[in-house]
Amino acid sequence: MTATVESATGTRIVLGQNQYGKAEVRLVKITRDTDRHQIQDLNVTSQLRGDFEAAHTAGDNAHVVATDTQKNTVYALARDGVATTEEFLLRLGNHFTESFDWVTGGRWSAEQYFWDRINDHDHAFSRNKSEVRTAVLEISGNKKTIVAGIEDLTVLKSTGSEFHGFPRDQYTTLQETNDRILATDVTARWRYNTLDVDFDAVYASVRALLLKGFAETHSLALQQSMYEMGRLVLEAHPEIDEIKMSLPNKHHFLVDLSPFGQDNPNEVFFAADRPYGLIEATIQREGSPATHEVWANIPGFC
Amino acid sequence: MTATVESATGTRIVLGQNQYGKAEVRLVKITRDTDRHQIQDLNVTSQLRGDFEAAHTAGDNAHVVATDTQKNTVYALARDGVATTEEFLLRLGNHFTESFDWVTGGRWSAEQYFWDRINDHDHAFSRNKSEVRTAVLEISGNKKTIVAGIEDLTVLKSTGSEFHGFPRDQYTTLQETNDRILATDVTARWRYNTLDVDFDAVYASVRALLLKGFAETHSLALQQSMYEMGRLVLEAHPEIDEIKMSLPNKHHFLVDLSPFGQDNPNEVFFAADRPYGLIEATIQREGSPATHEVWANIPGFC
Amino acid sequence: MTATVESATGTRIVLGQNQYGKAEVRLVKITRDTDRHQIQDLNVTSQLRGDFEAAHTAGDNAHVVATDTQKNTVYALARDGVATTEEFLLRLGNHFTESFDWVTGGRWSAEQYFWDRINDHDHAFSRNKSEVRTAVLEISGNKKTIVAGIEDLTVLKSTGSEFHGFPRDQYTTLQETNDRILATDVTARWRYNTLDVDFDAVYASVRALLLKGFAETHSLALQQSMYEMGRLVLEAHPEIDEIKMSLPNKHHFLVDLSPFGQDNPNEVFFAADRPYGLIEATIQREGSPATHEVWANIPGFC
Amino acid sequence: MTATVESATGTRIVLGQNQYGKAEVRLVKITRDTDRHQIQDLNVTSQLRGDFEAAHTAGDNAHVVATDTQKNTVYALARDGVATTEEFLLRLGNHFTESFDWVTGGRWSAEQYFWDRINDHDHAFSRNKSEVRTAVLEISGNKKTIVAGIEDLTVLKSTGSEFHGFPRDQYTTLQETNDRILATDVTARWRYNTLDVDFDAVYASVRALLLKGFAETHSLALQQSMYEMGRLVLEAHPEIDEIKMSLPNKHHFLVDLSPFGQDNPNEVFFAADRPYGLIEATIQREGSPATHEVWANIPGFC
Repeated sequence: MTATVESATGTRIVLGQNQYGKAEVRLVKITRDTDRHQIQDLNVTSQLRGDFEAAHTAGDNAHVVATDTQKNTVYALARDGVATTEEFLLRLGNHFTESFDWVTGGRWSAEQYFWDRINDHDHAFSRNKSEVRTAVLEISGNKKTIVAGIEDLTVLKSTGSEFHGFPRDQYTTLQETNDRILATDVTARWRYNTLDVDFDAVYASVRALLLKGFAETHSLALQQSMYEMGRLVLEAHPEIDEIKMSLPNKHHFLVDLSPFGQDNPNEVFFAADRPYGLIEATIQREGSPATHEVWANIPGFC
Repeated sequence: MTATVESATGTRIVLGQNQYGKAEVRLVKITRDTDRHQIQDLNVTSQLRGDFEAAHTAGDNAHVVATDTQKNTVYALARDGVATTEEFLLRLGNHFTESFDWVTGGRWSAEQYFWDRINDHDHAFSRNKSEVRTAVLEISGNKKTIVAGIEDLTVLKSTGSEFHGFPRDQYTTLQETNDRILATDVTARWRYNTLDVDFDAVYASVRALLLKGFAETHSLALQQSMYEMGRLVLEAHPEIDEIKMSLPNKHHFLVDLSPFGQDNPNEVFFAADRPYGLIEATIQREGSPATHEVWANIPGFC
Repeated sequence: MTATVESATGTRIVLGQNQYGKAEVRLVKITRDTDRHQIQDLNVTSQLRGDFEAAHTAGDNAHVVATDTQKNTVYALARDGVATTEEFLLRLGNHFTESFDWVTGGRWSAEQYFWDRINDHDHAFSRNKSEVRTAVLEISGNKKTIVAGIEDLTVLKSTGSEFHGFPRDQYTTLQETNDRILATDVTARWRYNTLDVDFDAVYASVRALLLKGFAETHSLALQQSMYEMGRLVLEAHPEIDEIKMSLPNKHHFLVDLSPFGQDNPNEVFFAADRPYGLIEATIQREGSPATHEVWANIPGFC
Repeated sequence: MTATVESATGTRIVLGQNQYGKAEVRLVKITRDTDRHQIQDLNVTSQLRGDFEAAHTAGDNAHVVATDTQKNTVYALARDGVATTEEFLLRLGNHFTESFDWVTGGRWSAEQYFWDRINDHDHAFSRNKSEVRTAVLEISGNKKTIVAGIEDLTVLKSTGSEFHGFPRDQYTTLQETNDRILATDVTARWRYNTLDVDFDAVYASVRALLLKGFAETHSLALQQSMYEMGRLVLEAHPEIDEIKMSLPNKHHFLVDLSPFGQDNPNEVFFAADRPYGLIEATIQREGSPATHEVWANIPGFC
């Protein structure tokens, strides 16, 4: 049942979907069992769902597990080790849904940042900023779904990309090309069909396959490169049912040097900021649902 | 029908949902019919949906209306005037779905930036950065849905906010309070149930109601303030079926000055960056769908 | 005397200029003597100079007033009221230089953020993000210098701006124009020649004069607008000896609509991100020093 | 001679230091002499100094080499190859100062972004975002000075850092520690005393020495680590006269888990955003000037 209020508009106004929690809990976990330290660097968000109606309609917080408590729980559970990011989210989600009757589900997510050792040093590291790993756990009743991902992976091909054969109307001025720069920032998220995954190993494999698909596809459209990247992932990983990608087409315009008496055989480019193309798709295993509910709460995908 | 590929995993891999277009087309339109100029400042994104499978699976661009063409169309249509942002998006969406048989829908969105006149000058302006207006049009077959919104509206109450009565478990350390700062950045999106709206007037009214709801609610929880803000909007505007809000609880921690022999009766605060609470909900008209399809493609909401 | 180290390069290596402190202490001060609250919102940085050589060369912290202590001091001093931002910086600077013999100077700076009342409410506010006020105090021995400023003030003229008569060489392709959009983000800093200033009143006046100078100048070059803006400030304020501005020329390119059979009489523009012009100058009172030492430690100016 | 204006304040107002140009020209240069392409990715800013007074005081642009022309020149000169970033800036600076009598100097700078090959591919690359290389050339009459640098290099030691022995006053609450996390983002700039440098090789060496100095120093203060980092650079490179660093002390606070019945032996940390320590110094060769003029126009250093 939901709260209702008589409305001047003749209908009643009710609380719909809702969730709340603590966002961007910055957790750095050092594992120092030996002199050779390990570092795990996460940005964790915890959001609860369930019966929180009284807080909205009456300011009654009897069910509101404080967001401060959620933050404390992140740190307390980390004391026993993080394992993989996905396993840590599972521990968090299980904790909250098992501890409070009225918490029937939620969303736990993290960004994971990578560090390299400096000269193989035991306890000195430098941040590898070339990508960010993401993970989302959604619990809805008895159902648990994990979506893993990668962000901020910027790639470029200096040749091996064409674009032609597109329709021309009264607003078309673009020239066809059979040699252009193709560049994008890869944002991808893939949904596992099981919780029994070697999450670190699969992440590493998916990352490698995305890079391989981008690099090795002779591209007639960014759509084609994207599809091939997704296909490689799904072919190699039966534990993944679908992958979504959102790829900006980061335009590199060939500079017209002819006013200066110079040619420009695809050597000098202006890297533009905006606008950019935006190419988005799901590549999925046949028979998987057209729209899985987990995506309702994950931003930025078609 | 969708593309299929024999997979090493024993299932076939197909293209799922997809869309593409040009993002962040920065359009500044000056209306100069008289010496008293008008300025409209938009950031427009156009994305098409329909039959684009061959581009993905074969690099065949026969259906791919170039994103460059989409950008050109934004500027060409603006030449005849922008009217309201929502009406401009409708013109864009109608153009693309009517011009190309295989374009069965899409998503057109914009951010709108505001400018104030400098000393009531005819053609000199300063940017009012205190909020950003947003709009999304989604077309799916014959169905057109408009979602309007506001972002980056930062508000604060220096008293009139309490938080107590929340459950305490082994991870709870937060003290109860009956006087705290309450601060948030309002992000709200509301769905119209009709296209026949005075969009500028309703935007101004919703903005005013959100501010009023925040300011005038004696708050026992940010959830309560949020619910009241949404309720005011739905009561006043029968053309709106639901409103979603995502409100960070921007913590302002009272600084403990007792080590310095000072009291601190809610005067000196540390404004923290992260983590922050994150409170999200839909307030809706009874009988409206629990999950309207338009939200699948709008980021950042529960 | 400075630390010295025998170097493999045959010369000795010494510590040069140095300073240290706590940066970006986010202070929100509520004044609640009456029910009508006042809010002051600052981002304060404190940096000390003096004899800190042993910390660098030997890790000896006997002189290192902890940056945590500097942060605490910001909050403790705020308890008694902030007054104007500049006066608060003076209290901070005096405290540190008077409390520790070896602190011979330093740099104290702040950003100040503005809030408007919501509907004239006693304790509800919304952030006015259209500008940021800045202030820097530098103490060097007995000498105290204050530089005030404004940032993020974005302005635009939709006409009343020309650009022609510039030299043409083999790399010049720009066409002359006698009607263009002129837009910039004003960053200005001005140096007071006294500490006896009504800082809030002068800030308001300088802000108004910069806006007036920009709006009312029929501009043949952004340099000309900038010079006029500075001239107005110096003419009105004998307590200011010089003002420096850094103004991006934010290009708004007229879109060529002729391929679509449309004219474009300065109505439809593409607002570009990068590159942008960057116009920087000092306007100063004759006889003031060409390079005042205070600027050595203030970023972003010529 | 400088422009003068009679002022209401009884003094004359004149133009002081000034410079102008085009900022953030995004240049991507592909060298494709063989199938194994090379990529150079720069963000170039060109600013001219000289006699530009008439533009300021009279809107007379006869001397104003258009910023658009400066942008074109960047691209045209890149056609013949970029060589090292510093050499490219020298070509730009020489061009402008030799081409226009009234251009007596200027400032040319660039950020350089790095790309790695994907699987040793001939023309597919991924961006290495773990650092940004910077370079500034300043020409003043016949004098040319080059300052090179590195930014956004984030490093962390999980042990081997102490902080104690600092003075305690009434505002000191910080506890001493002999085991803490030390983390910073390295921003460093070093001044060459010659133009005859193997710029790429020295950059690589300085980068390695900064990492080595940070990693291998058992740190009693971030100042000590910084000094050692600089000392290593100056000892190895006689062509460098001074190096300036600006290092945030990025606090990682040990989380107090005792309320939950847990210990925390330096394993679980909260990585804070603000405030942060800010440690800045020059390490220089004895006899080099205390304040070299080149620094007047380079932001962010003491």
